[in-house]
Amino acid sequence: MKKSLGAKTILYPTPVLIVGTYDAAGKPNAMAAAWGGICCSSPPCVAVSLRKATYTYGNIAQQGGFTINIPSEKYVREADYFGLMSGKKTDKFAESGLTPVRSDLVNAPYIAEFPFVLECRLLQKIELGLHTQFVGEILDVKAEEGVLDEKGNLDIEKIRPFFYAPDSNAYYGMGKLLGKAFSIGLAIKKK
Amino acid sequence: MKKSLGAKTILYPTPVLIVGTYDAAGKPNAMAAAWGGICCSSPPCVAVSLRKATYTYGNIAQQGGFTINIPSEKYVREADYFGLMSGKKTDKFAESGLTPVRSDLVNAPYIAEFPFVLECRLLQKIELGLHTQFVGEILDVKAEEGVLDEKGNLDIEKIRPFFYAPDSNAYYGMGKLLGKAFSIGLAIKKK
Repeated sequence: MKKSLGAKTILYPTPVLIVGTYDAAGKPNAMAAAWGGICCSSPPCVAVSLRKATYTYGNIAQQGGFTINIPSEKYVREADYFGLMSGKKTDKFAESGLTPVRSDLVNAPYIAEFPFVLECRLLQKIELGLHTQFVGEILDVKAEEGVLDEKGNLDIEKIRPFFYAPDSNAYYGMGKLLGKAFSIGLAIKKK
Repeated sequence: MKKSLGAKTILYPTPVLIVGTYDAAGKPNAMAAAWGGICCSSPPCVAVSLRKATYTYGNIAQQGGFTINIPSEKYVREADYFGLMSGKKTDKFAESGLTPVRSDLVNAPYIAEFPFVLECRLLQKIELGLHTQFVGEILDVKAEEGVLDEKGNLDIEKIRPFFYAPDSNAYYGMGKLLGKAFSIGLAIKKK
């Protein structure tokens, strides 16, 4: 039996997207966002929703590009910090000790220490309400060599991503492999 | 040092969203989608991207509503099955043995056995390319009483959600609690 909890923005999992941007003066900024995800396969696109009040909102609108950085679980404190502070008043890279690297594809920085980044060109800006959704075309995916396996493929066990639970305001790590997609469901098909 | 992997739709984590709809004849359908997530806090909205070729695409467009069901890890096979088959040719509820329940808020079914559901009214349909993004206003969140704690709050340890890793085509369970959000980053702020 299901119980009504009201109209809330709860979903599991939500990602921890660290959005890298430059401001008008060229200062790099990083903010944490949970409202987003891949939204199209062709062109390859990712969406992230931001409130107008955020520093990142103006930066993306001005620069036309951004990065989506995925932290490993060892950077959970830094990721949380990026969501606590505003770049209007703080140099979050300087304070956190993390290193901004200028993308050669878009006018935005990515985070050297994080294992995985999407470099995105702003395609659409969609007004939804309190949040505006920025849709970026993924121009490239870059990963640290240390998270690739011997064949050059991404190894999620080395990336160690984590997720955000909106209702309990908590971060959870990745757990065990449950099965292969487009595969373990075949048992039902064959029943 | 980061290595370029090309323009790919990879992100960690991506959710396993089971989209519940009715077709024109009233047959319930469920499909698995990974391209989506919460996209606005007010109004509370969730986005899910679908290809025109899917049965669900037509169902949402016709009915103006859908549900987003979150499976527990014990239903990973059923979730995968919902992504393997098309409702055009299959009665996926009958085949999987899961139970459709008619929402009293939108013209769509939710899945009795899954712990958590969002009931959504279609607000926007945004063409992005191969995928169309459906933005739904969350009219209610419902959860099984068995996943609530003694205070009536959601207990993620009882929900046991899992995520999808697009590059390795695999499902991973939830891991351990890493820390509280808007809290563990304060240590950096105070440095």
